[in-house]
Amino acid sequence: MIVLGIDPGIAIVGYGIIEYIGNKFKVLDYGVIRTKSDLSYPERLELIFNGLNQIISSYNIDEIAVEELFFCKNVKTAIDVAHARGVIVLCGQLNKKPIYEYTPLQVKQGVSGYGKADKRQVQEMVKLLLNLKTIPKPDDAADALAIAISHCHTSKITGMFRA
Amino acid sequence: MIVLGIDPGIAIVGYGIIEYIGNKFKVLDYGVIRTKSDLSYPERLELIFNGLNQIISSYNIDEIAVEELFFCKNVKTAIDVAHARGVIVLCGQLNKKPIYEYTPLQVKQGVSGYGKADKRQVQEMVKLLLNLKTIPKPDDAADALAIAISHCHTSKITGMFRA
Repeated sequence: MIVLGIDPGIAIVGYGIIEYIGNKFKVLDYGVIRTKSDLSYPERLELIFNGLNQIISSYNIDEIAVEELFFCKNVKTAIDVAHARGVIVLCGQLNKKPIYEYTPLQVKQGVSGYGKADKRQVQEMVKLLLNLKTIPKPDDAADALAIAISHCHTSKITGMFRA
Repeated sequence: MIVLGIDPGIAIVGYGIIEYIGNKFKVLDYGVIRTKSDLSYPERLELIFNGLNQIISSYNIDEIAVEELFFCKNVKTAIDVAHARGVIVLCGQLNKKPIYEYTPLQVKQGVSGYGKADKRQVQEMVKLLLNLKTIPKPDDAADALAIAISHCHTSKITGMFRA
C-alpha cells in the first residue's frame, strides 16, 4: 500500500509518501509545497492544488491521509488553513483517491502508541520507523510522514476513519 | 460587465449571475448547488466544484464576488464552510476569473446603502434593483444576487476589494 500523508496549511503544505508492505515502511518521497505571502490567496490555493496534483500523478498512491484542523485560539488562521484543506481534499477526491482524516492526537497515538508524546519524540519515531539517518526536514514534511505512518498503523488495526 | 455572486456553504451554495450595463441590472440566472448530508464531504466538495465549473462555463463571466465568512460561535460550522469556500475560490481562480470578497456588512451597504438593513430589506432591494416580481428563492440565491449587486455598486465607486 502506498500512502500520501498531508499536513495542510496555506503558506506551507507538508507531504510524505511511504510504501507499507508487511510491517515495513519505505520512504518514496517527502517535502513541502510553499506559497509566498505576497501572492493573492486564490493564487496560493491554485499553487497548492497544482502542486498536489503533480505529486499524486507522480506516484501510484492508494490512499491519502490528511490531518484534521487543530482549533487554536486564532480562528482567522484556522479559516485560512481550512480554505487550503478544502482544496487538498478536493484534489484527492478528483483523483479518485480514498481520503482519511486524523486528529493530531490520533497521529501521535498512531505513530508512537502514546498520545502525550511530544513533537520531538514523534519525529524520532518517524526517523526510526522509516529507517532514516536524520529527522526529515522541514517539520511539516516530518509531520506529513507521521500522518502517513499513523494511517498505516491505524487502518491495519481498526479499519477506517474515512472523511 | 457580467458578475457571478456566490454565497458559500457546504450543504447549499447560492449563486446569482447579473449583467450590469450603465446603471442597470439584468438577471441572467440564479439558483443553488445542493449537496446531501449523506455524502462524504470530499464528495460534497467535488459536487460544489463541478457545479460551479458548469455555471462559470455557461456564462461569459467577467468577475466573481464571494461573501467572506461570518465568524459565528460555531467554529466547526465555520471550518466546514471554509472548506467549501476554498474550493469555490479555487474554481474561480482555475477559470482565470478575478475574485473579490465582501463581508456581510459590505454587502448590506453595497445593496441598500445602509449597513443595518435587515435580511428582508436587503431582499426587497434585490427584487427592486433587478426588477423582479418576487423575492428570489431560496434565500441563498437571493443572498448571492445581493453579493453580485453589491460588487457592481462597490467596484464602481471605490475600485476593488480583491481577494
